Amino acid sequence: MINKKMEQLGKVRSVIRELFEYGKKRKAEIGEDNVFDFSLGNPSVPAPDCVNETIRALTEEMSSLQLHGYSSAQGDAGVRKAIADYLNKEHGESFTADSIYMTVGAAASLTICLNALVCEGDEVVAFAPFFPEYRVFSESAGAKFVALAPTEDFQVDEAAFAKAINQNTKAVIVNSPNNPSGVVLTEESIKALCRVLKNKSEEYGHPIYLITDEPYRELVYDDVKVPFITKYYDNCLVCYSFSKSLSIPGERIGYIAVSPKMDCERDVYAAICGAGRALGYVCAPCMFQFVAARCLGQTADVSVYKHNRDLLYNALCDYGYKCIKPDGAFYLFLKTPEDDASAFCENAKKKELLVVPSDSFGCPGYVRISYCVSTKQIENALPAFKALAEEYGLK
Amino acid sequence: MINKKMEQLGKVRSVIRELFEYGKKRKAEIGEDNVFDFSLGNPSVPAPDCVNETIRALTEEMSSLQLHGYSSAQGDAGVRKAIADYLNKEHGESFTADSIYMTVGAAASLTICLNALVCEGDEVVAFAPFFPEYRVFSESAGAKFVALAPTEDFQVDEAAFAKAINQNTKAVIVNSPNNPSGVVLTEESIKALCRVLKNKSEEYGHPIYLITDEPYRELVYDDVKVPFITKYYDNCLVCYSFSKSLSIPGERIGYIAVSPKMDCERDVYAAICGAGRALGYVCAPCMFQFVAARCLGQTADVSVYKHNRDLLYNALCDYGYKCIKPDGAFYLFLKTPEDDASAFCENAKKKELLVVPSDSFGCPGYVRISYCVSTKQIENALPAFKALAEEYGLK
Repeated sequence: MINKKMEQLGKVRSVIRELFEYGKKRKAEIGEDNVFDFSLGNPSVPAPDCVNETIRALTEEMSSLQLHGYSSAQGDAGVRKAIADYLNKEHGESFTADSIYMTVGAAASLTICLNALVCEGDEVVAFAPFFPEYRVFSESAGAKFVALAPTEDFQVDEAAFAKAINQNTKAVIVNSPNNPSGVVLTEESIKALCRVLKNKSEEYGHPIYLITDEPYRELVYDDVKVPFITKYYDNCLVCYSFSKSLSIPGERIGYIAVSPKMDCERDVYAAICGAGRALGYVCAPCMFQFVAARCLGQTADVSVYKHNRDLLYNALCDYGYKCIKPDGAFYLFLKTPEDDASAFCENAKKKELLVVPSDSFGCPGYVRISYCVSTKQIENALPAFKALAEEYGLK
Repeated sequence: MINKKMEQLGKVRSVIRELFEYGKKRKAEIGEDNVFDFSLGNPSVPAPDCVNETIRALTEEMSSLQLHGYSSAQGDAGVRKAIADYLNKEHGESFTADSIYMTVGAAASLTICLNALVCEGDEVVAFAPFFPEYRVFSESAGAKFVALAPTEDFQVDEAAFAKAINQNTKAVIVNSPNNPSGVVLTEESIKALCRVLKNKSEEYGHPIYLITDEPYRELVYDDVKVPFITKYYDNCLVCYSFSKSLSIPGERIGYIAVSPKMDCERDVYAAICGAGRALGYVCAPCMFQFVAARCLGQTADVSVYKHNRDLLYNALCDYGYKCIKPDGAFYLFLKTPEDDASAFCENAKKKELLVVPSDSFGCPGYVRISYCVSTKQIENALPAFKALAEEYGLK
């Protein structure tokens, strides 16, 4: 007699969570250092000093009522202005405080945008591989979720993308740097994507919104640039979270930036406020709104992730595995030497390697290796990866 | 082409918010001290010292990854155990860590419960006067919202309540101490309420859930006791927030306690986890989970509210107004001397008194006066209340 869909969502653990629980059990059996758990996308680098320093300073400087009191539903006006100014400086944009809506992290940013936009019969498109919760968020907002098959290099195939769009397409979700592949969309891909969206919006006589999920924006290596999408497309909502850049995923703080060039921008912003209200988000946590504003432009020590990526990527290539070199995020997407990714994962498990099969990311035949772990864990795991490659006769 | 319902929700400011914005404008015109703003239910007493002390201690004691990292979706296990133990000690209950689900405040507790329970065609009942967002939350979860007319003393009329329940009733929301009336439901009312729910659940062959919204539990005066509802009814979900007790409404931290005696308790808990996931609540803010657990049983200095209540209530009665003496929360519900509460509010405005008409609380003919303000504001406002009473020929 309760909502069975919700009960199901609560009971069926994700593959990632199953693996993580297995890892905990296995570590208890054979020792922490003997299990190589690459399952979770949880930052392994501490927050930069500015986070705790700002927290302590705020408790001294601000009155309790100001620091811990309600902000307006869309977030503190000063915080929103600081974020708008920062984005304008970084990306040459023209956001104002009223373009920004503070949220309880990226998941909230996405559910609020989707609930603000989706009407009955609408479709939401995402490119595989995609974060599995996109399906949950889209369907909960009442949309049909459409997964677009991956291309060889995980960039945009303009013709295939155009075919996935129809009269009912309300929004497209893009995630770059990507979870689970680490791929950053090239400017060429972005341009192709936006060309299709512009043409299709015109053809169907209504805007198709582009929602960009950007928690990994600052986690890029070797001077790779992540194009800022509002420059290429007007009807764009940027969903950001400070979880990964500041290594504070538990504090749930992020924002939605509504492109100032959007059609009916004030109406869309109002719908975002309405969706936040309907979903029970009163305001984003206040102290962390102030922390985020004061720490703008700072990041945790991302060089650790780059070091891990190089170590892992070079070794795996050397052992004969095929993988896309990740330009960002902290995931490596490895093509499994047999078609069945789950079977490969079971073999990996026998060597105490915990990696996530790619099926729930909408992209069979791969595993996701999260390298947001200690460098030592990677060093210790390499012989197991090597032995596995040899079993599969690679090289 | 966007969701018009959400756009509308975002655009139509609540009466309370309208009044608050008017107050800001008016203060700029005639000076802060000359406007008597009683519109908002925002704590006016600072957080107890333990809040900032704990925050600073946690930043020193815990590692960054532990303090600011993800907790499990239902909340940190140690925090949940501490809350269960506290509730068991206070109320002689038998909660476990697995009865508790940490949330981003009471609004999130309510939306998550409603989304977990409601199926198509369901109804949700609340007693007038009620917090206006109950309607928004219930309708957004897909339910029909049914408002039960108020009784004279705002207690439960057993026969009238029984008539409001039907085959489609999925849940009843109770809020005691009440916003906007300050009334605490008596044990007699609770027993009558639970009798109806038990009989009707039996008659219709399915549980009717009781959802209690309890952010004001600790804000009671003169040794009034708030009955703990899980003792009277098994199919009960307690929605709690630390916003008012610790004066940290901006930090968004609360919990749902699922009665361990509930039918299919594990299924309901799973549905809560599922709803939290679908709505985009990844986990409650982690640092404030730890803060809440360490500050259990502590409150802001509630004696200020009691002093304000006595001052205001005695004076208003003295001037000839009729109002229910509030036993809790920080609201006084005054019967307007003319039927049209909005007209009375306009007259009050002419004397710079900002009070909220009761229509959106489902209970016409009253105004809500929030006395979570400085005592000085009340003292300064009394002559205006007196003059208004004289205009209406009271006494």
